Amino acid sequence: MRTDLERFFNPRSIAIIGASQDFITISGQPLKHLQSHHYRGKLYPVNPRYPEVAGVKCYPSLAEVPETPDLVLILVNASRVADMLRQCGAKGVPYVIIFSSGFSEMGGEGVKLQRELAAIASEHGIGVIGPNCQGMMNVADGVFAGFGSVFFTDYEPGTVSMVSQSGGFGFSVMNLSSKDGGLPFRQMVTTGNEIGISTLEFMEYFIRDPKTTLIAGYLEGAKDAHRLPEIGRKAMAAGKPILMWKVGNTEQGQKAAASHTANLGGAMALYRAAFKESGIIQVDDIQDVVDYGRAFRGNRLPRGNRLAIITISGGAGILMTDECIGRGMRMAQLAPATVAKLKEFVPSFGSLGNPVDVTAGIFNDLTLINRTLQAIIDDPGVDCVAMINASLQGEIAAKIAGEIVAVSMKTDKPIYLCWSARDVMAPEAYAALEAARIPHYKSPVRCGRAAAAVSWYAEAKRRMEARRDEAPLALKKPQAAALLAGKTGDVAEHAAKRVLAEYGIPVTQEALAATKAEAVAAASRIGYPVAIKVQSPDIPHKTEAGAVRLAIGSERALGAAYDEVLANARAYKPDAKVDGVLVQEMVGDGAEAILGVTNDPLFGPAVMFGLGGIFAEVLKDVSFRLAPVTASVARDMVEEIAAYPVLSGARGRPRADVDALVDAIVRLSALAIDQKDRISELDINPLFVFPAGRGIKAADALIRLKNA
Amino acid sequence: MRTDLERFFNPRSIAIIGASQDFITISGQPLKHLQSHHYRGKLYPVNPRYPEVAGVKCYPSLAEVPETPDLVLILVNASRVADMLRQCGAKGVPYVIIFSSGFSEMGGEGVKLQRELAAIASEHGIGVIGPNCQGMMNVADGVFAGFGSVFFTDYEPGTVSMVSQSGGFGFSVMNLSSKDGGLPFRQMVTTGNEIGISTLEFMEYFIRDPKTTLIAGYLEGAKDAHRLPEIGRKAMAAGKPILMWKVGNTEQGQKAAASHTANLGGAMALYRAAFKESGIIQVDDIQDVVDYGRAFRGNRLPRGNRLAIITISGGAGILMTDECIGRGMRMAQLAPATVAKLKEFVPSFGSLGNPVDVTAGIFNDLTLINRTLQAIIDDPGVDCVAMINASLQGEIAAKIAGEIVAVSMKTDKPIYLCWSARDVMAPEAYAALEAARIPHYKSPVRCGRAAAAVSWYAEAKRRMEARRDEAPLALKKPQAAALLAGKTGDVAEHAAKRVLAEYGIPVTQEALAATKAEAVAAASRIGYPVAIKVQSPDIPHKTEAGAVRLAIGSERALGAAYDEVLANARAYKPDAKVDGVLVQEMVGDGAEAILGVTNDPLFGPAVMFGLGGIFAEVLKDVSFRLAPVTASVARDMVEEIAAYPVLSGARGRPRADVDALVDAIVRLSALAIDQKDRISELDINPLFVFPAGRGIKAADALIRLKNA
Repeated sequence: MRTDLERFFNPRSIAIIGASQDFITISGQPLKHLQSHHYRGKLYPVNPRYPEVAGVKCYPSLAEVPETPDLVLILVNASRVADMLRQCGAKGVPYVIIFSSGFSEMGGEGVKLQRELAAIASEHGIGVIGPNCQGMMNVADGVFAGFGSVFFTDYEPGTVSMVSQSGGFGFSVMNLSSKDGGLPFRQMVTTGNEIGISTLEFMEYFIRDPKTTLIAGYLEGAKDAHRLPEIGRKAMAAGKPILMWKVGNTEQGQKAAASHTANLGGAMALYRAAFKESGIIQVDDIQDVVDYGRAFRGNRLPRGNRLAIITISGGAGILMTDECIGRGMRMAQLAPATVAKLKEFVPSFGSLGNPVDVTAGIFNDLTLINRTLQAIIDDPGVDCVAMINASLQGEIAAKIAGEIVAVSMKTDKPIYLCWSARDVMAPEAYAALEAARIPHYKSPVRCGRAAAAVSWYAEAKRRMEARRDEAPLALKKPQAAALLAGKTGDVAEHAAKRVLAEYGIPVTQEALAATKAEAVAAASRIGYPVAIKVQSPDIPHKTEAGAVRLAIGSERALGAAYDEVLANARAYKPDAKVDGVLVQEMVGDGAEAILGVTNDPLFGPAVMFGLGGIFAEVLKDVSFRLAPVTASVARDMVEEIAAYPVLSGARGRPRADVDALVDAIVRLSALAIDQKDRISELDINPLFVFPAGRGIKAADALIRLKNA
Repeated sequence: MRTDLERFFNPRSIAIIGASQDFITISGQPLKHLQSHHYRGKLYPVNPRYPEVAGVKCYPSLAEVPETPDLVLILVNASRVADMLRQCGAKGVPYVIIFSSGFSEMGGEGVKLQRELAAIASEHGIGVIGPNCQGMMNVADGVFAGFGSVFFTDYEPGTVSMVSQSGGFGFSVMNLSSKDGGLPFRQMVTTGNEIGISTLEFMEYFIRDPKTTLIAGYLEGAKDAHRLPEIGRKAMAAGKPILMWKVGNTEQGQKAAASHTANLGGAMALYRAAFKESGIIQVDDIQDVVDYGRAFRGNRLPRGNRLAIITISGGAGILMTDECIGRGMRMAQLAPATVAKLKEFVPSFGSLGNPVDVTAGIFNDLTLINRTLQAIIDDPGVDCVAMINASLQGEIAAKIAGEIVAVSMKTDKPIYLCWSARDVMAPEAYAALEAARIPHYKSPVRCGRAAAAVSWYAEAKRRMEARRDEAPLALKKPQAAALLAGKTGDVAEHAAKRVLAEYGIPVTQEALAATKAEAVAAASRIGYPVAIKVQSPDIPHKTEAGAVRLAIGSERALGAAYDEVLANARAYKPDAKVDGVLVQEMVGDGAEAILGVTNDPLFGPAVMFGLGGIFAEVLKDVSFRLAPVTASVARDMVEEIAAYPVLSGARGRPRADVDALVDAIVRLSALAIDQKDRISELDINPLFVFPAGRGIKAADALIRLKNA
């Protein structure tokens, strides 16, 4: 498939199959839009019914078009698309946008039809965009190859490039951002059902495109989701933030899975993990695209997350503080020297804390604002500054803006303005800020969100740089592969733990007994008390089946329990294949954790961590990362769950052995990668985490293998 | 204090103490603003330095003003405000706005000065607004009594009235809402440090004011917070939604409290509880004020929370679904008849699920939209409808808007539009929607938030109506009062539980022993195993002191343990007053909950519920309500915590006795009210909740009394 997307965005010629003379309809619009936005290449409408369309010679078929167009737009009924695509293939067309609907989105026959398109595209090496999409705009070069209301308008070219799986909605974002939001776009493409060139491939192109400085995406789901971390890292290296709008967060009904890990790891958990690890910024509304986009235009990243706020209105200062702290920033502690300097000119009824409230006193002394700003910028404990100017307008506003710009020129710390005057009331002030690329917002909440987004991105960048040389643990264990060889379905506890042990994850002392005598012998070797559990690949939930007895204190009790668990297992599932009875040391006195692997069809293997029982299963207080996971990332996973204080020694508890836990996560990640072709899901539940220095131990485990 | 606030908002005469001839300054602005907005009453500038200001005769002192003004504005330096306020008192002025800063917001001397003002106001019965505020606007009558940039503009009068504790920020909200947001205001007042008329008193006035239909508030903290539920209920009865913006959510450092309840019950938890119970809608940004305000203008409340979405763009439908489900709405299940009807005209590649996707096919058949809308509105399983029209513009847009209005006229179900065309691109369509009061939004997220806010409000209203006749349990227990009489500080477990028992809350079987022999006798009466705990009002955290031993199985073990706990207690706190050793039955086999009371200085008594240990203390998974709490509210408290499945029988656990738990909460609420003058904090931790039918039992308790 083609990836020289310069040619797609800037085609020398375009053929339009199904071009209509009714310029209001979907098939009539594209030619008109291309013309009215002064497309500079050649246009070839294709339709056997017309000799010409909109004054352009029309061809009865693509074959008769006198050259091979760089781009073909297909606008015919779904049932005829495959034929047309074949004709594109025969002619050697590199790029085709299929606008037509009626494919996978309608299910049934549509799915089949779509598969046929994919096969044709692949056979001929055609770069397909769509089907079921709304086309593309290259604003800078006047290529408006699509339909819809937003195509009737002209746009100022900018440096934002966006790819959207939703046509109608994606173009709405572009239109509102460019026009009302003052964030002009460079390119915009919609990918619909995305059988060909994917959202991530377009993003990869935008990373290379020298004139794109900011990338936006609207994503419902990515077939190549496993590439997200790589794309994020490339974008970070290129200094181009990615704003990603991922929708479909409400998962109504989850697939049935054997493990808790797979049940908890809905697609959204994995997307979030991928975004977090690779510095891709999630947005939640059109406002965010505009607000964050404007914040990044200044091209300044703070060195840390310490924010100082200067305000002339206490209320707005409180609001912004709430917003920024809630999003991971810290309020800077001003240096005594800074406070002393401020004391010289801030009115006595102002506040010298942070937020610094210079009060409405500025109406009487305009210089207050910039003297305060300079003092705060000079404070080495401040990484960025937000300034709140309420509704200042007119001349006063213009003068203050000028002084802010002057201060900003002499620093590389980001400065954000919250300025609520309406555009028409402070035009000079806003123009001065725009020219200096100082972002300004009407609401303190939006200003705070934007400042926090930039701070989050800068932190992700620092983290990524600090960890660049950390190599993930890689383990090759042919022994483990041998243990799984020839198996299908669920692998019961004992066998699963032997696999874990191969990767250096400590497991309970135990032995599989085929007879009562073997069980007794094992127990006396291990030492009482012991636990016993029936082992069967057909009984993944042993407790439910009554196939487990804990804390057996004597040989006599063991004998009775042995008979009982086997009887229960037989009653529970008469045809279950029983491997034997597992005799196991009793483990206690540790925090119960759960570790797991889910091998997602889109993302590949991912690792989960949480605390056991209610915490993971009811409160869903778990963390996910895509494998491979390095030690520092594993530590993030442990520390980011809400119940982390349980491990860190809250409320008189002993501090748990987090180092050993981190090591186990790293080893599990290595296992997940090494066995990714075999293992579909894996749970270690519970994993006991003992007090610091005493390690961890897997007390139960379950592996579900991929279907052969 | 005066509460005939009509006079305040519509004064017949205004005196301005400290009026300046420099019209740019704070003290110069108000007179100018009143004049330029055509104030119809008499104006009396007061300043001994000028014979006239802005062409109006100026008086050397208030005493010399020829009448008693309805309203006085004080604009002098903080140090002179008290004198001026006394002069207002002498003259019998009913309302005074104190603009001056330099009071409690600066601490120290300012706090003293502010107390003096409050005393003067109270002595003379003056209704004071401020100090440290920005004044008032009565848009409808042209009374612009304040300063700031926003006063230079004219506004169209509307029906929204707002009170804000922040001046600069409050007026920014009003300005942006009225102008850019199209939500015109009727009245706006800022209350600053609020020593006199409070935010809630202004809200109460707005509830009475016949021309106000929607109330907005910006609140940092309310001295009369306990009145919130009453205000909420009155507003609900009057059909006037209150949009409340409560800030200061980030509590950096909490006061030291003995009980978990008081530690967890930061002010924000109580505000949230009050808002929830009384149908006060929380907003988080200026957008919310505008968006929710516009949604309520149509004056339609849905009968349930079932939403149907119609879209021409799949992407936006997903977004809105996420937003609405995340905020408590449900997606309506369309009736088979509705689906059959839709099948007749929706294109085959559209979607007949909910969201119903009629696709971009509307460009080819405009009637699709309104036929679909009518079919969905007619479905009895649909309570409200959101329709997503992407960026449709121009003539098509106008035609579609007309048809939507026609459908809307024949139903009382709310219809919301998500329509992303910019204002200038669909002016006719938007005007038609405005005229019909059909709310429309540019973004599906904002449309979804607004629909969910109306749905939340309607649900609160239904809940309130259903529970109107539920009387809270009231208990008068002089015995309990006698138990607490003469005590101060902390009341230890045994005595605290006797208080609980008075209110019918089951407690453990136990006896206080003064000697080892008494302890042995008690244990044999109760039955082994027992627990023992040293009782001392000076040792609230007994476990920490080593003053507790559990599961003592025999008389011999009891003797040794008795000596040990007493020795530990003495070592821990040598001068502790020891009441004796509590001998107690061992309780197990139940879920551990925590119940508590915090008697907040602003809110009065509030009740807390959570699960024990980590859940309440680390995860802060608790619920609060202001007392009194009825049974249905207590049930809400139990069901709303995230860990509720622990009680409802998740993961093979037995279902807990929630009825008994609810009863205990109701009784605790009655206790909190009955003892509100004595008790400051109360914890029951743990409270064991046994399996259904087996009740509950308080296993430990602590009461902290108010300082005498």
